[in-house]
Amino acid sequence: MIKVGIVGGTGYTGVELLRILATHPEAEVICITSRSEAGMPVADMYPNLRGHYELEFSEPDASVLASCDLVFFATPHGVAMRMVPELMASGVRVVDLSADFRLKDLDTWANWYGMPHESADWAEKAVYGLPEVARDAIRDAQLVANPGCYPTAVQLGFLPLLEQGLVNPARLIADAKSGASGAGRQGKIGMLHGEIGESFKAYGASGHRHLPEIRQGLTAAAGKGVGVTFVPHLIPMIRGIEATLYAELDNPQDFDRLQALYEARYKDEPFVDVMPFGSHPETRSVRGANHCRMALHRQEDSNIVIVSSVIDNLVKGAAGQAVQNMNIMFSLDETMGLNAPALLP
Amino acid sequence: MIKVGIVGGTGYTGVELLRILATHPEAEVICITSRSEAGMPVADMYPNLRGHYELEFSEPDASVLASCDLVFFATPHGVAMRMVPELMASGVRVVDLSADFRLKDLDTWANWYGMPHESADWAEKAVYGLPEVARDAIRDAQLVANPGCYPTAVQLGFLPLLEQGLVNPARLIADAKSGASGAGRQGKIGMLHGEIGESFKAYGASGHRHLPEIRQGLTAAAGKGVGVTFVPHLIPMIRGIEATLYAELDNPQDFDRLQALYEARYKDEPFVDVMPFGSHPETRSVRGANHCRMALHRQEDSNIVIVSSVIDNLVKGAAGQAVQNMNIMFSLDETMGLNAPALLP
Amino acid sequence: MIKVGIVGGTGYTGVELLRILATHPEAEVICITSRSEAGMPVADMYPNLRGHYELEFSEPDASVLASCDLVFFATPHGVAMRMVPELMASGVRVVDLSADFRLKDLDTWANWYGMPHESADWAEKAVYGLPEVARDAIRDAQLVANPGCYPTAVQLGFLPLLEQGLVNPARLIADAKSGASGAGRQGKIGMLHGEIGESFKAYGASGHRHLPEIRQGLTAAAGKGVGVTFVPHLIPMIRGIEATLYAELDNPQDFDRLQALYEARYKDEPFVDVMPFGSHPETRSVRGANHCRMALHRQEDSNIVIVSSVIDNLVKGAAGQAVQNMNIMFSLDETMGLNAPALLP
Amino acid sequence: MIKVGIVGGTGYTGVELLRILATHPEAEVICITSRSEAGMPVADMYPNLRGHYELEFSEPDASVLASCDLVFFATPHGVAMRMVPELMASGVRVVDLSADFRLKDLDTWANWYGMPHESADWAEKAVYGLPEVARDAIRDAQLVANPGCYPTAVQLGFLPLLEQGLVNPARLIADAKSGASGAGRQGKIGMLHGEIGESFKAYGASGHRHLPEIRQGLTAAAGKGVGVTFVPHLIPMIRGIEATLYAELDNPQDFDRLQALYEARYKDEPFVDVMPFGSHPETRSVRGANHCRMALHRQEDSNIVIVSSVIDNLVKGAAGQAVQNMNIMFSLDETMGLNAPALLP
Repeated sequence: MIKVGIVGGTGYTGVELLRILATHPEAEVICITSRSEAGMPVADMYPNLRGHYELEFSEPDASVLASCDLVFFATPHGVAMRMVPELMASGVRVVDLSADFRLKDLDTWANWYGMPHESADWAEKAVYGLPEVARDAIRDAQLVANPGCYPTAVQLGFLPLLEQGLVNPARLIADAKSGASGAGRQGKIGMLHGEIGESFKAYGASGHRHLPEIRQGLTAAAGKGVGVTFVPHLIPMIRGIEATLYAELDNPQDFDRLQALYEARYKDEPFVDVMPFGSHPETRSVRGANHCRMALHRQEDSNIVIVSSVIDNLVKGAAGQAVQNMNIMFSLDETMGLNAPALLP
Repeated sequence: MIKVGIVGGTGYTGVELLRILATHPEAEVICITSRSEAGMPVADMYPNLRGHYELEFSEPDASVLASCDLVFFATPHGVAMRMVPELMASGVRVVDLSADFRLKDLDTWANWYGMPHESADWAEKAVYGLPEVARDAIRDAQLVANPGCYPTAVQLGFLPLLEQGLVNPARLIADAKSGASGAGRQGKIGMLHGEIGESFKAYGASGHRHLPEIRQGLTAAAGKGVGVTFVPHLIPMIRGIEATLYAELDNPQDFDRLQALYEARYKDEPFVDVMPFGSHPETRSVRGANHCRMALHRQEDSNIVIVSSVIDNLVKGAAGQAVQNMNIMFSLDETMGLNAPALLP
Repeated sequence: MIKVGIVGGTGYTGVELLRILATHPEAEVICITSRSEAGMPVADMYPNLRGHYELEFSEPDASVLASCDLVFFATPHGVAMRMVPELMASGVRVVDLSADFRLKDLDTWANWYGMPHESADWAEKAVYGLPEVARDAIRDAQLVANPGCYPTAVQLGFLPLLEQGLVNPARLIADAKSGASGAGRQGKIGMLHGEIGESFKAYGASGHRHLPEIRQGLTAAAGKGVGVTFVPHLIPMIRGIEATLYAELDNPQDFDRLQALYEARYKDEPFVDVMPFGSHPETRSVRGANHCRMALHRQEDSNIVIVSSVIDNLVKGAAGQAVQNMNIMFSLDETMGLNAPALLP
Repeated sequence: MIKVGIVGGTGYTGVELLRILATHPEAEVICITSRSEAGMPVADMYPNLRGHYELEFSEPDASVLASCDLVFFATPHGVAMRMVPELMASGVRVVDLSADFRLKDLDTWANWYGMPHESADWAEKAVYGLPEVARDAIRDAQLVANPGCYPTAVQLGFLPLLEQGLVNPARLIADAKSGASGAGRQGKIGMLHGEIGESFKAYGASGHRHLPEIRQGLTAAAGKGVGVTFVPHLIPMIRGIEATLYAELDNPQDFDRLQALYEARYKDEPFVDVMPFGSHPETRSVRGANHCRMALHRQEDSNIVIVSSVIDNLVKGAAGQAVQNMNIMFSLDETMGLNAPALLP
């Protein structure tokens, strides 16, 4: 049984970790920290957990965390980079769901997150935890940086094209849309139901923190610099991301082999589902599940490849991928605890 | 391994049975019938099932159904009453999720469902499958009539009061609200997103089919005739029922012991959660889960007991309760396959 | 042209006043105050007003307010009772959309609003502004207390029954449901889209501030004490209230004349629409409009009268009714500025 | 007073025409036809119109239509092209909200709409009714082809760039999203609330009927052939379109003058609102209103111009623009009947 700790469990990724781990046969949550809610039973904050957990939120305690086999960080950025080095020293393994260890270029990190990075050492050693790209490194990692939600949907959708060098890497466009849970669980007026229900808008269109993370991943896949335009949008729903990706095929004849290429690229991946050419993946088809479903499209006489890619931002885009990474790190079946179909309707 | 058949699997209760059974360790769906969609893979209609089922919808075939250990009917009313007698003769056990075998008074049935009942014999033998009331009878039943969604939420909320004879049984009011999936999956204009999104209304306020079912159950609990007013409403969401129940306490001093009474009544029930006095159960706290959560309220100087009771209409109100019944019928752990926490947020 | 001031205009009732007054031919908003947003153009906060208003939020200024013909208060409770006496002295007329002047019993007020009332004098003189009950008094009032949203829907639905003494006044039940805008525009976690989208719950079931207001109005209508149970619920949508009302008819034969009674009671009311017996009013049928639509129901063999009553909580339940009151106070056509049909779909 | 007829009034564009015209001071609807609902009062189908219209749906009657000054067609494609020639002969003016007269290339039309075009003559004479492009021609037109919803949002957003020749016309991308009312009011399973609520997906990604209409308009603006990729998506809400547009600036220095260029292009347009650079237009800011709001964005070091453009698909995307066209055709103030601010929240 893997002894699991969760730091910062009051947000949506925290409750999602608890939900998934509640039925995981090889993991047990032994502590979940929250400074603000210390002493409150998690089931009082999240009534879906009534009957599943007796656990209370507790003050972060270094010795308790050090006794865990694995600690998940579900904290705002800036927390993990301060706490992780000590945990590393004590031999605990960590999956950080925050942005602290995702970027290798720390100037870029400092720029987007508005503070200097405090753990250059571990930022370098951290493995970027996209299993479809870095499974072997994840297995051996002590510190895994769990990818962001948008970057997961966007990278998985673009990867086969860039790995094979089939498209112009300078002209990538990712038009992405997310449900409201992606913004977390803080009392902001802008995220009230009265503000965002029954409305739709772009946000961060002039620049969003996930852009450098996407660029870093796509650059690695392409083996050279990429130019990517990324515009996120807010959907009046709770869970789900859809990313519509546009890339320019160098050779239009390659269209004929794209579907086979995508299927081959992901045929051994338990959580990537390449749907038939021309399908329209729905976010509800992955609600509560760890899958990324995608499909390819072409419009007549066009050399633009269109990829529609969907995930649940809280699962494959956060807590589910984190558990997938845990499974890999502990040599468990990668799908353990992640088998249930999506909740549809 | 229980060999399971599903008759009429294209609706929301059908897909919900498939979703739940996909991870049930002791049941395997061997056939699912649909005249209209015969030959279509279930995963083509319900993309959340991609990777979970190879199964196709098939024409109903008596010999295949007869080879099942258990057949679920997820059909419109009028179908099961015609097909069940033959299945009974072949020894198959059945859980009917339709309304065909719920009412004992067949004149009432004919009145509300607009056709004569064709299987008086089995209507009499059928066990009304509310486990919290009839667990032992369910265990031995060959035919279980799975309760309706509203009747489940309403009966569980009223039961302790009526069983103990604490309230005036002539003045019961159940103001119930349901998400849109309760209306099924037919192409009706009235259920379009454009019609019911961002709006709320009562419907069936002059009389609804679930009223006689509720009355039958509450009469049995009270041991005498009851007067119940039941008004359903349509919520602009997909899953979930909330029923607010009003009953008049004969003796206002009894308020002091109601909470304890409810907790005692349900303390061994794995799927009924009596929350602390004054709580407000949310439908999302049971989304995708088989629980009924409820709480009691009193307003100052009033002798009206208020009970708020929530379920997921597709789970405890349909497919989940059906699987719970299957578990009981086959002497499995009653919670098998029904353990996952609700999907929140 | 009526010179209008608005105190506290950053909330939903503030923007709704601006929306309605934008096309009112006889009123002009000359100031709108907000301490926190002073200097910000209203159209920057509310982009639907771009092109309609050049106005900026300003610090409250007594002399500017004193120069208005009418001042609307769209403030949290406790503000108007402090500012109104001075305005009254300067001869300005006021419609207060907050709760400050709605209750005549100030102990009750203090109890529910958690502070002593500071203007007993004006609380006594204020006219409770439900035009269907107090039109003449409103016409002459200097201070109108605009009714709460729930109390408007509930009172209009019950009035004919109580005025005629047809039902048992001790057993009134009002099961009411509201969209999220009723909770205002503050950054509370509990009102995030991620928290209340796709979910439904009761709240305030043990007691809500609108209960004494409802009781006061129904008592006046009945001419004697009433017993009313009031349970509000939160609907995952933005605008709209539906109240389902239950009352016990003393004489079941009276059912035959109820429809005519309701139609007669409201036949001259421009904003109350009695729909045919057995109809189901939808909240969308009044979205953005100042109407209350209602319909009567009876279930077989029952002596319970069921009334379903719908309003837009921000219009007939707040800003629309306030403008209706202004029209009455200034002897304008009562429907002026309130003529547009509801936005459906 | 303009005598108005509406052919095919049972859909969402029909009710929206009625809603807008209810308060139009210079137009009166004298007939509204529907074969299927002849005899039904429009207010029975659309309860928001109770008290506003006594009108009933009627069988189409050539002589009644011929007595109108203006007839709106709110029919499925294929109807107007058969009925319009006779009306033209009788001198009636027509605004056709369907697709029948939007495309000049009738082979393309036949291809996308699956039937031969039957009125080549009037297809040639029809004026494409985008007032911001063709106001003068509209004024004199007998037949106006009202633009589609997506084409309105997309064309208005791209126009200044193409008219000035600032971008590569071969690489235009329009990622557009619409609420469910855009699909009309037919009982299709795919548009049930249970199917599309709380989910998001692309549709028509391999080709959509609005693509040739967009291409035709942009080609005219650019004065040369354009390459445009257009992917529509379905938002779980009722009203509103957001289009995010991507174009490649030939000369990145032009970024500095784009905002001024857009503001100048639309400064005299009553219904186009160019928001400050970097704004994020929300669909709710135009809900129920005839405005198109848009804003420009640039991401660091990029030569991609990003434009976000929002409309209400039923207003500026259909009925509102149709009334705007009517106002132009009859030399009324262009904003008549279209003055009310959007409904927010």
